[in-house]
Amino acid sequence: MNQSELISLLAPETVKIDQAMRHDLALVESPRLREVLEYAIFTGGKRVRPLLTILAARLCWQNQGKDIAPEMTTNLYRLALSFEYLHAASLLHDDVIDRADSRRGRPTANRLWGNSHVILAGDFLHARAMLLAGTIGGAECLSVIGSATEAMVESEFLQIDNAETQETSERRYFEVLEGKTAALIAAATTTGALFAGASLAEQQALHTFGRNLGLTFQIVDDLLDYQGDPQKTGKAIGNDFQEGKMTLPLIIALEQACPHDKTILTNLLDNTAEERQKNLPHAHQLIEKACGFEAARDKAKGLVREALTALTIFPRNKEQEIMTALAGYVLARQG
Amino acid sequence: MNQSELISLLAPETVKIDQAMRHDLALVESPRLREVLEYAIFTGGKRVRPLLTILAARLCWQNQGKDIAPEMTTNLYRLALSFEYLHAASLLHDDVIDRADSRRGRPTANRLWGNSHVILAGDFLHARAMLLAGTIGGAECLSVIGSATEAMVESEFLQIDNAETQETSERRYFEVLEGKTAALIAAATTTGALFAGASLAEQQALHTFGRNLGLTFQIVDDLLDYQGDPQKTGKAIGNDFQEGKMTLPLIIALEQACPHDKTILTNLLDNTAEERQKNLPHAHQLIEKACGFEAARDKAKGLVREALTALTIFPRNKEQEIMTALAGYVLARQG
Repeated sequence: MNQSELISLLAPETVKIDQAMRHDLALVESPRLREVLEYAIFTGGKRVRPLLTILAARLCWQNQGKDIAPEMTTNLYRLALSFEYLHAASLLHDDVIDRADSRRGRPTANRLWGNSHVILAGDFLHARAMLLAGTIGGAECLSVIGSATEAMVESEFLQIDNAETQETSERRYFEVLEGKTAALIAAATTTGALFAGASLAEQQALHTFGRNLGLTFQIVDDLLDYQGDPQKTGKAIGNDFQEGKMTLPLIIALEQACPHDKTILTNLLDNTAEERQKNLPHAHQLIEKACGFEAARDKAKGLVREALTALTIFPRNKEQEIMTALAGYVLARQG
Repeated sequence: MNQSELISLLAPETVKIDQAMRHDLALVESPRLREVLEYAIFTGGKRVRPLLTILAARLCWQNQGKDIAPEMTTNLYRLALSFEYLHAASLLHDDVIDRADSRRGRPTANRLWGNSHVILAGDFLHARAMLLAGTIGGAECLSVIGSATEAMVESEFLQIDNAETQETSERRYFEVLEGKTAALIAAATTTGALFAGASLAEQQALHTFGRNLGLTFQIVDDLLDYQGDPQKTGKAIGNDFQEGKMTLPLIIALEQACPHDKTILTNLLDNTAEERQKNLPHAHQLIEKACGFEAARDKAKGLVREALTALTIFPRNKEQEIMTALAGYVLARQG
């Protein structure tokens, strides 16, 4: 399945997810709150997280050869919204925390409505997500989603600690990533499996798939920050280096560079943001020389391979094909 | 039961709640996150919300004449923590929103650790509260607690709208109060009832009790802001008027004052914060003359009467006595 086939297969699903979301948010009473929520949620996003819940559940259902009642499908879509809500809530709070002005070419919600409205809107989405997860998915789904949220917060704290101690190990990098990105995506696939009454082996396979996809997503993000085409990513290049952020290509380069290059790279890092921006081409060249980009991409490829191997316990079918194509897309994406 | 009897009866309960909370928070991995959470939670508070959950459940159990297994009691205490967590989470986020420097004589957490840590710590408590509610109390408890959280956010938006439109009706005031304070306390008592397998009549009675106690609590707060003794409340007098906040005594005074006084009071309000502070004694006198304080206190008394009437469906026992004393305390409290 190539990328355009994947997109045309997923487009109707995205529409259905958006419909379910509009229907759900129609309950919001305050017009202003609804306005903030709609701005935060209807961004033209690809709805990857809810899609993964839906695909995971269908994969398990197919495997069981069961007939699925239409109301189960309706409930599955509503349950899946939890993951879009949690994602949106964390972006809202992140933008307040980072005092961000713009996200994907639009002004942030905090810039338009101020911090108060945005913190509260995040709290609302958070409550709504947990409510949907617990009432539709039951205690087990709620447990998965609650633990993922706790892991997200813990990893943000870990990240702040790392920044303060200038912690640069690959182990710590992945520790943060597990909580920050992987936990929620793994929760999305696991929740789909649980909702479909999957076996433990199926749950574990889908957990691995989600987790690895999440990790890959972030590594590719790290790579695009150095190597992306701003026309396609919508972001200027070199932000991470300018901010002194220890992302995977840089961490690996510091590990693998010869002592001479390592000293130069460390000196480039120990500088003002302005100087770092000026020296970006030099840093880029040193990371390249130390195979930082290649090694990071290899890591991502290895994670996707592992994700696809996990899916082999399921018989080949359309859902599996879509998930395979999705994993390929996450790895190859350029924006 | 007088106030000191009440306090000595509740003290061991508060200790047990604190123990359950310490035990629960020991799971937090990040030392910094734990530090923020402990600062936010162990404030010497009276734990009224979890106490109400526990008392409500016991009242229903007594009514059923059932023997309660010890693990049910352990679970009840853990379930009750949800309400202390939600309360603490909302205070954390409120202090960020209000850029508050101090709360009850201590620096706020945001002043000590900054907004990022505090927003995230609030999110953590929120997730933990919903997780406990859903896994221990089941879907129905989760629904109650989730709806209360949504109502809290909606009412904050309503309050912002009211401030912008200079909305001063008593109806709007109570609408905000229902969501802001009453919803969570009503959820606390209702959750206790649900956990104890209460009948619908029992649930409704305990919902009314919690809701009315919450409303009373806030009205008394409004009164103390004008009439309290700073030695006992720990707060300076007249904050609300200085901020131009439309609280119940002022709303009623504007309704009941003669046209001449109403114009003066309106003019005092339509002024700078500095001028309002200077004119506080004058405003106080006008509110008093229009019976604003008396009428607000009568409202509170009426709500407590209604709360106690609701409890009469239960046979008289120790729990009911404690709850009655608690309602009396909320009404009579001076700090």
